[in-house]
Amino acid sequence: MSKTKVAIVGYGNIGKFAVDAINEAPDMELVGVVRRASSLSQPKPSELADIPVVASIKELPDVKIALLCTPTRSVPEYASEILSLGINTVDSYDIHGDLADMKIDLDKIAKQHKSVAVISAGWDPGTDAMLRCIFEIMAPKGITYTNFGPGMSMGHSVAVRSKDGIKNALSMTIPLGTSVHRRMVYVELEEGASFDKVEESIKTDSYFAKDETHVIQVDDVDNLVDMGHGVSMERKGASGITQNQLLKFDMRINNPALTAQVMVSSARASLNQQPGAYTMIEIPIIDFMHGDKDKIIRDLV
Amino acid sequence: MSKTKVAIVGYGNIGKFAVDAINEAPDMELVGVVRRASSLSQPKPSELADIPVVASIKELPDVKIALLCTPTRSVPEYASEILSLGINTVDSYDIHGDLADMKIDLDKIAKQHKSVAVISAGWDPGTDAMLRCIFEIMAPKGITYTNFGPGMSMGHSVAVRSKDGIKNALSMTIPLGTSVHRRMVYVELEEGASFDKVEESIKTDSYFAKDETHVIQVDDVDNLVDMGHGVSMERKGASGITQNQLLKFDMRINNPALTAQVMVSSARASLNQQPGAYTMIEIPIIDFMHGDKDKIIRDLV
Repeated sequence: MSKTKVAIVGYGNIGKFAVDAINEAPDMELVGVVRRASSLSQPKPSELADIPVVASIKELPDVKIALLCTPTRSVPEYASEILSLGINTVDSYDIHGDLADMKIDLDKIAKQHKSVAVISAGWDPGTDAMLRCIFEIMAPKGITYTNFGPGMSMGHSVAVRSKDGIKNALSMTIPLGTSVHRRMVYVELEEGASFDKVEESIKTDSYFAKDETHVIQVDDVDNLVDMGHGVSMERKGASGITQNQLLKFDMRINNPALTAQVMVSSARASLNQQPGAYTMIEIPIIDFMHGDKDKIIRDLV
Repeated sequence: MSKTKVAIVGYGNIGKFAVDAINEAPDMELVGVVRRASSLSQPKPSELADIPVVASIKELPDVKIALLCTPTRSVPEYASEILSLGINTVDSYDIHGDLADMKIDLDKIAKQHKSVAVISAGWDPGTDAMLRCIFEIMAPKGITYTNFGPGMSMGHSVAVRSKDGIKNALSMTIPLGTSVHRRMVYVELEEGASFDKVEESIKTDSYFAKDETHVIQVDDVDNLVDMGHGVSMERKGASGITQNQLLKFDMRINNPALTAQVMVSSARASLNQQPGAYTMIEIPIIDFMHGDKDKIIRDLV
């Protein structure tokens, strides 16, 4: 069996876990990692000893699929460029308000260059969205609450770190139920910075202003880092006119490991789609899975 | 907007709840119910006052989709016949060991007559299978346990009722975890029947022989009937090489109402598929949903 040649673009947390997920996938092989030129002068991480690390995907031969593990805001640009080369892309773009428009843009490019983009293929957006939709298939009327955490929010942590007076920061998301969240923000201050000013600038930031937010000063943020995260998603709804159908999904997971695994499963799914851009809910579930389709149906349906 | 014309074939518990689910679906209309000739002489149920009730689907004009709400063993025959008329079918065929072969048979017939069958579209098989597969997409290595109940098992209850000496019976499924179940069987005996003989014939039946089974004599089985049911599905697995990813789905539902709703959602999905037979995991999730696709992506992904 010839394996599908996959490249990783961007090498932060998700990129590192993507190496593992590709190595574990029986049908894929990692053919290279694309990093910014500035990273190439650094020593190569040991897990990439036998893997080409390059500055452009064009330096890697015959790449079929690129996993975009860059910061989320860079995804549209990288995806456009790589889809134009006829290479499929998978991303975990996580800006819920913008993903539908990004899909429309990438769909045009992908169709023109006969490539496939699977977008927002992480856990939220991603597998959580699949579950939210299945809950609506089961009980079309009702309310679904998505409760995140406890766990680190990457986006909120980055927002805090960009502020004046802050050396390092971590924002924890705490679920209070019915999609209401508390933010626990741990900050390590620069010499001479005022805690009161830092606290106010966090609490008035649009990322935090709507939520109950607590800011706590600590000596060392690194000691608090744990990449575990969780979701509890609940729907109470009606099937037909039958009320009180209770549905619940709960997970406790390593965040970047799950995102990377979902991206690798989505890379597989990209091989079976017509040119264009897709969210996970637009692709048959079986396409994400490895193995003979008849056997999957016999074993799991 | 012209609504899709749907017929119900078979009018037991699921058929009754299917009337509600069709009436609640903004894009469908119920154009008739097909019953055995022997049922047609009985008074019409009030909820069908304005609905044609006939002995053959051929008596109903322009049916686009038939929901097969017959006993599960009759599904292959009805599906073959109705697909041959160019009418889509949806069933909740629940014999896990046989559904893959049924799919192969119906796929040929559907392709030949340009119709679509969505098979085993209930909650297990059905939505549970979608979730089992999504759990594997998230954590490909590991074990999934499906724990049913507490709730009435239709299949086990029917098996008990067919035995000598039994007037009425109900079998409850009790989850003991790790896919192990206890069977609590409530029996109402015929005059003069021996409880010991009844008990032995139940415990040695292949439906019960492998499970811890308790048989209890009661005066009136009807007083015990509650169509609530539940599932708790758990997977502990690895994403890439990251262990201990914990995934759990839990539901407490009205059994026939959920089955009927899933069938109606699947009827909608049948309209977007190429001719052939499909399980739910072979159809994009979004196809089961009512409404504009771009809006669904904006609201739920």
